Amino acid sequence: MSASGWLWLTTAIMLIGGLGILLTGKRRTKAEELQTVLHGIVPIIAACSYFAMATGQGAVILPFHTAAAPIDGTRIFYFARYIDWAFTTPLLLVSLAYTAMHAGSKRTGAIVGIVLADVVMIVTSFFFGASEIPSLKWIWFLISCVAFIGVYYVIWVSLMQANHEERDDVQTVYRRNAMILSVIWLIYPLVLLVSPDGLYVVSDTAAIVFILILDVAAKVVYGFMSIASDTKITDRDL
Amino acid sequence: MSASGWLWLTTAIMLIGGLGILLTGKRRTKAEELQTVLHGIVPIIAACSYFAMATGQGAVILPFHTAAAPIDGTRIFYFARYIDWAFTTPLLLVSLAYTAMHAGSKRTGAIVGIVLADVVMIVTSFFFGASEIPSLKWIWFLISCVAFIGVYYVIWVSLMQANHEERDDVQTVYRRNAMILSVIWLIYPLVLLVSPDGLYVVSDTAAIVFILILDVAAKVVYGFMSIASDTKITDRDL
Ligand SMILES: CC1=C(/C=C/C(C)=C/C=C/C(C)=C/C=O)C(C)(C)CCC1
Ligand SMILES: CC1=C(/C=C/C(C)=C/C=C/C(C)=C/C=O)C(C)(C)CCC1
Repeated sequence: MSASGWLWLTTAIMLIGGLGILLTGKRRTKAEELQTVLHGIVPIIAACSYFAMATGQGAVILPFHTAAAPIDGTRIFYFARYIDWAFTTPLLLVSLAYTAMHAGSKRTGAIVGIVLADVVMIVTSFFFGASEIPSLKWIWFLISCVAFIGVYYVIWVSLMQANHEERDDVQTVYRRNAMILSVIWLIYPLVLLVSPDGLYVVSDTAAIVFILILDVAAKVVYGFMSIASDTKITDRDL
Repeated sequence: MSASGWLWLTTAIMLIGGLGILLTGKRRTKAEELQTVLHGIVPIIAACSYFAMATGQGAVILPFHTAAAPIDGTRIFYFARYIDWAFTTPLLLVSLAYTAMHAGSKRTGAIVGIVLADVVMIVTSFFFGASEIPSLKWIWFLISCVAFIGVYYVIWVSLMQANHEERDDVQTVYRRNAMILSVIWLIYPLVLLVSPDGLYVVSDTAAIVFILILDVAAKVVYGFMSIASDTKITDRDL
């Protein structure tokens, strides 16, 4: 399938996934309503970004210089991804934070902290993707990774701590969601490293396919799983 | 008056309106303070955007292709508007949501939902404005309208529901504000449809004048009215 074929397919999956979550998600309590809305809107934002990329609007062609010059001297930079991520990754983390602190009072500092670390991660990674000078590109990559460690810190230390005061089933769900999210998200920098935005050792289409699998896993599959476990938590609340 | 004359005039109106709301708005309760701050900051953000447009920084010239070719093959795309709207429309909706749920506990999901639907509406409408290919332009327009329906849904269903538990005077104010906002906002897509960003059937200056009337109504006039009715609600609270 062509690059744009894959992008169209993902647009459809995201749209259907998002609407599916919005329509099937329950809203019996305020907490449950928030989870449904967050997880439903994330794939819809992604659908807009994939639509832009599929129609050629969300990308520009940049020069690509390399000693080995494996390609023809240019690469396609799909900048729409980074705009998508700037909105959707904070929403996914807010949803995780609300799961961590399900019943207890919310530690606003931890939520603001994780969102800001995440926004720094994505904005600096945009400069990574956009950079043409390798030295600068890799400095941005490093800065982004440091911010990513900040995100992990809040997930595994601050939110974990707050989560210890919750009911047993809430703790189990939080630890499971935190683990799945941490693993899926960790694959992103590895894929971007070898993609055309990084070292360009895999083709444009291969990078698109890798990233779409990650995106569908991180947004749609993880979304449905989160919503399902949140429904069980809410069942016990009521 | 020239296009830039109108833009300067609006810069002044927004600045004076915003400062007027900030200086005259009361802050006796936390709720009242929030309303004053929200409605005061909205026109100040708009003043920045109008300043950028008046000085020629908030606009670019794009090619304009049409069968009839009524103009000279280009149009001025005032992108600063969309940046302004991306910040100010969520603030106006948050203010409306806090009026809806004046005394009761806040449905976070509804607030997050309306803000996200609104941000999707504005971000996709930016692509509408920026697009040069008509078919894509109109798809973005449609997507933006669907998000707009999401905004209406939260106003007239979710928030309305929450509002039913409030005091009578709060219900009256909410319904009135929701109605005024819904009507003013509905005119935006109609004006943008015929503006240079859309079909280009009215001139650049005419579009500027239509939009400035809407912007002053939606931000300054609506702001002063909101603040006045909120003062009455707070009078009864105290
Ligand atoms: C640290 C790091 C990165 C991390 C990206 C991540 C973690 C993205 C997650 C995206 C998600 C979850 C999207 C969909 O929901 C980049 C940008 C690859 C490159 C620079 C270093
Ligand atoms: C649905 C839709 C639109 C709606 C715009 C609105 C509703 C703007 C409101 C702006 C306000 C209220 C600004 C100042 O306060 C656009 C972008 C015209 C075009 C695409 C379709």
